[in-house]
Amino acid sequence: MKPTVTIEYCPKCGWLMRAAWMAQELLTTFAEELEGVTLKPSAVGGSYIIYVNDEILMDRKVIGHFPEIKEVKQQIRDKVAPEKSLGHSDRK
Amino acid sequence: MKPTVTIEYCPKCGWLMRAAWMAQELLTTFAEELEGVTLKPSAVGGSYIIYVNDEILMDRKVIGHFPEIKEVKQQIRDKVAPEKSLGHSDRK
Repeated sequence: MKPTVTIEYCPKCGWLMRAAWMAQELLTTFAEELEGVTLKPSAVGGSYIIYVNDEILMDRKVIGHFPEIKEVKQQIRDKVAPEKSLGHSDRK
Repeated sequence: MKPTVTIEYCPKCGWLMRAAWMAQELLTTFAEELEGVTLKPSAVGGSYIIYVNDEILMDRKVIGHFPEIKEVKQQIRDKVAPEKSLGHSDRK
C-alpha cells in the first residue's frame, strides 16, 4: 500500500481552500507515489497539520507559520520517493 | 468515528480538479458530519467512483455519466445525516 498524506485544517479559519490547493499540488507531483490525499476538518482551532500515514510531517503551530508547498514536497519526496527530482521545486 | 468519503478519479483523464472541487463542496456542506474526504488517483482508466467508507455510492461507469454534485450531496446526506436539509440542493 502506498503512503497516504492527510492535511488536517481548521474549517472555521477558512483553510479548506488552501488545503485543497495543496492536495492538488501533491497529487500532481506524486501521482504515482501516493495512495491518496485526505482533507480532514480539524476539531481544534488553528490546526494545519500535514501527516504521512499517521506520522506528523509538518505542524503549523510547531513551525510557527504555514508550511510552504516547496518544503512540503521536499519532505514528502524524502520520505516516499527519495530518488525523485522535483525540478525547480527542489533544493538548490 | 465519522464516515470518510473517498473520490477515486482517473488522473490520466485529467479529473483531479473535478474531484478536488467535489471534495470542497462536500467538506463545505458536511463540515460537521464527515471525518474527511480522500482524493485517490485510480490505476484504472476512466474511473470516477465515490465511496462512503468502503462502500461504493456512485460509479461513473455504472450510472453512465459523471455524478452530479446535487445528487452526490443528497445521497451522502441520506447516509450520514438523514435529518439534514440541503437547502436549494435538496429534493423538490
